[in-house]
Amino acid sequence: MSSPVKRLAVLGSTGSIGRQTLDVVRALPERFRVVGLAAGRNTALLAEQISEFKPKFFYYSSDNKDKETRTRLSAMGCRFLSLEDMVRHPDVDTVVMATSGTAGLSATLAAVKAGKNVALANKGSLVVAGEIIIGEAGQSGARIMPVDSEHSAIWQCLNGERQTARRIILTASGGPFRDYSEAQMAGITVEQALKHPSWQMGKKVTIDSATLMNKGLEVIEAHWLFNIPVDNIEVLLHPQSIIHSMVEFIDGSVKAQLSYPDMRLPIQYALSYPDRLANPALPFIDWANLTGLTFEPPDTDRFPCLRLAIEAGKSGGTCPAVLCAADEAAVELFLSGRIRFMDIAHLVERVLEQHKKVDHPDLNEIMAAGAWARERILNLICGDD
Amino acid sequence: MSSPVKRLAVLGSTGSIGRQTLDVVRALPERFRVVGLAAGRNTALLAEQISEFKPKFFYYSSDNKDKETRTRLSAMGCRFLSLEDMVRHPDVDTVVMATSGTAGLSATLAAVKAGKNVALANKGSLVVAGEIIIGEAGQSGARIMPVDSEHSAIWQCLNGERQTARRIILTASGGPFRDYSEAQMAGITVEQALKHPSWQMGKKVTIDSATLMNKGLEVIEAHWLFNIPVDNIEVLLHPQSIIHSMVEFIDGSVKAQLSYPDMRLPIQYALSYPDRLANPALPFIDWANLTGLTFEPPDTDRFPCLRLAIEAGKSGGTCPAVLCAADEAAVELFLSGRIRFMDIAHLVERVLEQHKKVDHPDLNEIMAAGAWARERILNLICGDD
Repeated sequence: MSSPVKRLAVLGSTGSIGRQTLDVVRALPERFRVVGLAAGRNTALLAEQISEFKPKFFYYSSDNKDKETRTRLSAMGCRFLSLEDMVRHPDVDTVVMATSGTAGLSATLAAVKAGKNVALANKGSLVVAGEIIIGEAGQSGARIMPVDSEHSAIWQCLNGERQTARRIILTASGGPFRDYSEAQMAGITVEQALKHPSWQMGKKVTIDSATLMNKGLEVIEAHWLFNIPVDNIEVLLHPQSIIHSMVEFIDGSVKAQLSYPDMRLPIQYALSYPDRLANPALPFIDWANLTGLTFEPPDTDRFPCLRLAIEAGKSGGTCPAVLCAADEAAVELFLSGRIRFMDIAHLVERVLEQHKKVDHPDLNEIMAAGAWARERILNLICGDD
Repeated sequence: MSSPVKRLAVLGSTGSIGRQTLDVVRALPERFRVVGLAAGRNTALLAEQISEFKPKFFYYSSDNKDKETRTRLSAMGCRFLSLEDMVRHPDVDTVVMATSGTAGLSATLAAVKAGKNVALANKGSLVVAGEIIIGEAGQSGARIMPVDSEHSAIWQCLNGERQTARRIILTASGGPFRDYSEAQMAGITVEQALKHPSWQMGKKVTIDSATLMNKGLEVIEAHWLFNIPVDNIEVLLHPQSIIHSMVEFIDGSVKAQLSYPDMRLPIQYALSYPDRLANPALPFIDWANLTGLTFEPPDTDRFPCLRLAIEAGKSGGTCPAVLCAADEAAVELFLSGRIRFMDIAHLVERVLEQHKKVDHPDLNEIMAAGAWARERILNLICGDD
């Protein structure tokens, strides 16, 4: 049996998922205690969080040797620890990995090797290094608990089932451009792309949702989390974002998980698993006002990122690492106004075409593939090729 | 662990559910063996089934001391046993209770007292004697496994969950008269009422589906099966009959079970539980051709039977027994052309109003209440009141 109070280290506490994790802790103080907080550069919010939750440990990205901030935060009664030391610490039961991009990979691996429960909101880690992370978890007994709404839905549907899924139906809102024509898609602005119809998220994830790259990364993540071939994962557009994903079993029965779009639910489920907890802040579906749920297949001509991600997932090896790094670089270029929306996919596709895949890569090979991909993107943009 | 081959007694083998149970056995002969078959008066089909499945035991309703049939069936190499002796027999692992109406109550109780696994398709038993059956199962350790598509859906959604449901959302196709006006409903013919849009079923259940009485009985059944107050069970019309019911948990998460309407799936799930088995005869949902799922609240003005059943469920005691018996009698009168469709509810309501409820009734009191209700219906029709 688990301890009645779970002690959490929240990595990426000032980001969207991190802040919502702290909302869950606020609502259920008798069940969760924050013992570690780690942020990037938003030290103002981190200081507020430290003052409220009084963790034992903290971390922030102090590249510039900013001794003054560290001294000020340490004066609040907690200790600066590296991410790796924090997640391994015996006072930590569960690590919430809510850093964005591939930044959290090394901390995720440290937590997994230490056999911790890892509530994983960081998509990059599993996409680029799924084979390594799942392998290490198998050895250490670490439990990886998905925080993404889609993977949480799948996990909930698989709960109690003896057999694995025959097929996973990963739902997607379709993003703000679901019904755009090709001509309209050519002119998408940054402002338009940052408006997601159902979810409030960070900028990078919002753009990835608009291109459906995000859904493709989720396919790769589901492949690793649930040990199911990429070919058995189907993406289905579901604009209402009420069904968060479905699992089809060998007897033809399908289970679906439904809720209003609210990330606090999958966050809380990962933290409370295998229990469920009442939380007055979480809404119940009002069926009288929910008249219909619709579905349609995705159009990979208008959303080539989805196809690219699924292909990279099938190829495996270093391809997903290249996909992620190329996408990260391309989205940055789009956000800074240097390329158009549809160029994101074009650039990622060209880089993937040029990549020489390494099978069963180690971490160095994964990092090298990512660095190579980012460099290729910049070269393509600067017209060196 | 359960034995690799489950030995089944199928009670009601010549009815709709019974025949589909035998379809499942036919598809999975390495997992299931029929050791007992029991039918009503369709001895021609029973003889065919005996010849195909070669059970050890058989039973049929031989009110008229039809020695000749019994001798002929016995000559096929199996033994005539009473329903009670059959379900208690040590060679039987799982009893499929697929008799219609309240006829199967005594056999259900015998199976439950003997600690058998009971795949329960007979609605009447739990509705009229839920308190007794669930109490006996608690003592004997018998497992009651629902075969109804709705209750199977709820059971599947609760699988692996530690907490009970906060709310059950029982879906209903709405039957053939979902969109009828009150004026149209006044003129419904027997022929119209026997055409159900989604399910192929026996006559009584088809009429009960058209009046929504069936859905009300399912509410009472769900109350007993899943230990949840009637007030926490909501009925939602869902004309596509794809979502077979849903469970809402305390954290706001909802799980739904989906499949095409095919009774073989819930039958097979009850027989294979906790495993799922591949069966080439069972269809998989084709998402590309399933564009939408819709929902609407039921109208209890046009479908008063739903309200009457829910009220009887809340009242408890002998009220559900009176409801069932009155409905059975009223449906017979409708089928024989003696009353109109909307009179079914009027008659049932009048009988319920006249009933003096007995709380925590024993079997005799339940039977007496049913007999009283049937007599009242006939008196009301003959104009004695």
